[in-house]
Amino acid sequence: MKTNRLYVATLFGIVTLMTTHAGAADPLPSWNEGATRTAIIEFVEKVTTEGSADFVPLEKRIATFDNDGCLWLEYPMYTQLLFAFDRIKELAPQHPEWKTTQPFKALLEGDMKTVGASGMKGLMEIVIASHSGMTATEFDKQVTEWLVKTKQARFNRPYNELIYQPQVELLEYLRANGFKTFIVSGGGIAFMRPFTEEAYGIPPEQVVGSMIESEFQIKDGKAEIVRMPKIHFIDDKAGKPVGIYNHIGHRPILACGNSDSDMQMIQYTMAGDGPRMGLFVHHTDAEREYAYDRKSHVGTLDKALDLADANGWTIIDMKQDWKTVFPPK
Amino acid sequence: MKTNRLYVATLFGIVTLMTTHAGAADPLPSWNEGATRTAIIEFVEKVTTEGSADFVPLEKRIATFDNDGCLWLEYPMYTQLLFAFDRIKELAPQHPEWKTTQPFKALLEGDMKTVGASGMKGLMEIVIASHSGMTATEFDKQVTEWLVKTKQARFNRPYNELIYQPQVELLEYLRANGFKTFIVSGGGIAFMRPFTEEAYGIPPEQVVGSMIESEFQIKDGKAEIVRMPKIHFIDDKAGKPVGIYNHIGHRPILACGNSDSDMQMIQYTMAGDGPRMGLFVHHTDAEREYAYDRKSHVGTLDKALDLADANGWTIIDMKQDWKTVFPPK
Repeated sequence: MKTNRLYVATLFGIVTLMTTHAGAADPLPSWNEGATRTAIIEFVEKVTTEGSADFVPLEKRIATFDNDGCLWLEYPMYTQLLFAFDRIKELAPQHPEWKTTQPFKALLEGDMKTVGASGMKGLMEIVIASHSGMTATEFDKQVTEWLVKTKQARFNRPYNELIYQPQVELLEYLRANGFKTFIVSGGGIAFMRPFTEEAYGIPPEQVVGSMIESEFQIKDGKAEIVRMPKIHFIDDKAGKPVGIYNHIGHRPILACGNSDSDMQMIQYTMAGDGPRMGLFVHHTDAEREYAYDRKSHVGTLDKALDLADANGWTIIDMKQDWKTVFPPK
Repeated sequence: MKTNRLYVATLFGIVTLMTTHAGAADPLPSWNEGATRTAIIEFVEKVTTEGSADFVPLEKRIATFDNDGCLWLEYPMYTQLLFAFDRIKELAPQHPEWKTTQPFKALLEGDMKTVGASGMKGLMEIVIASHSGMTATEFDKQVTEWLVKTKQARFNRPYNELIYQPQVELLEYLRANGFKTFIVSGGGIAFMRPFTEEAYGIPPEQVVGSMIESEFQIKDGKAEIVRMPKIHFIDDKAGKPVGIYNHIGHRPILACGNSDSDMQMIQYTMAGDGPRMGLFVHHTDAEREYAYDRKSHVGTLDKALDLADANGWTIIDMKQDWKTVFPPK
């Protein structure tokens, strides 16, 4: 593997040289010139310059990115929750008991205030009921079909097109420099995997996220994984470094998040030896996307904003730093 | 990632062509000619021939290998258990209570019969006591140091040199053909990761195994993972397909094990669509390694031997199929 990544990096080096020679080659075309872009490029050049004191060998070039609000849209409501709501509506005919049980009753009646008032406990019941009781293969298909047929209202596009173009370029730039890129999200691992390879170039095995329990069963004579109605692991806040340890087994050298829930991942990343980079996307662009931070009910960015300077974390200002937000239609 | 692996495969293709032209290029030099070697090569050629009905795209070329008894020696005792025993002896001065508590008392007195009689419960206590209470960084260092200083008695070599040379070649051959190779072991994930990249070319992030709980803590001002005295996940038997689902998120197209504990992984692998290969290493070589199967206390291979033919599983006969067992000194 080490050798494979060396080949790729060498090959990319040759391609880059060729392109540079031809006068093109901006690795981050959707990023505005400025301190953030410069800091990223300087970091990558530093860790990839052989012979430099800051050189990092290929196998340690691990980069982790949050998903919601960091790689794709999360506002005004986490996409996975919208998927869960839609699935409950589709499953309702098989669950007559939901007509009289909260928070399902409220959801089916469109009473979102009561759903919200059910709190984390109520939302978890909705997530578990919509995410379990099927095989892994079936769930994968349900997510894929939902992403194809569902459009986000304001932008009138499928959710997997509402990804951040500058971040997609950053991931590609890191990989071209020998980094292995991972998602480390509080969202469900099985909800992300059906689209992350196409959207971000991140294959299923490099996605870390929250998980429900699952079981191996022989179903209708076929060996299958069946998803069970119980939480197995929450990959959020202090769970993120644990998810990184369990799945990846290295401390990343670069991590990017967008909310206080990513702080522990950034702290874990920054505490290793050698050069380190911690990034937070700050949603400052109400016109092209949304503007929210300290008081938002999703993606709250408050403590991390206060602590960024003293800890050497880099804040990406969406409005200032990004030329475009979403990929062209 | 898809693109990266394509580059690598193309590059290897060129290298292979060049080598073939030069008249060399046996991808499996430590395998004897015969049905097993032929079946492996035919499978790999089939899934990598573009335009063939059996062609498998790069991102689906996932191969999973058990570790103990499949990639390295496991007989007469699992290496990780020997590590645990040695650690308990080293830690004993800090645990005076072990002098009067079983199974620690027996272990410290060298009474292995009583240790064995303590069963799975007793052994788990020993494993947990020796594998928790330290940071991830410290544990990694303990394993690395133990592997350097400990030699297996019969072969007088460190355990990480008692790996199976033919399997190392098989892993390399698969990777050269665009496969991504993973370990899926009942052994501890954190015990394997310090040596798998050097021994097998498998990086930490492609190791799946059993896990204890861990916690994110700020220790002496530094963000660390601390290993806790509680089992989180057992990656064995029916746990193997679950571990594969959680970590990898694809169904493998090739899997290799060596005991009945690998049967569910092989069943899960074989149940997918398209071409599939399931392999079991059969320890038949008392002279160069060990001969054991149906009645062995480690690596029991019994049911799988009976079911192999009817299910199209391939049995690797160590004595017949392998020219050498371990790498040269």
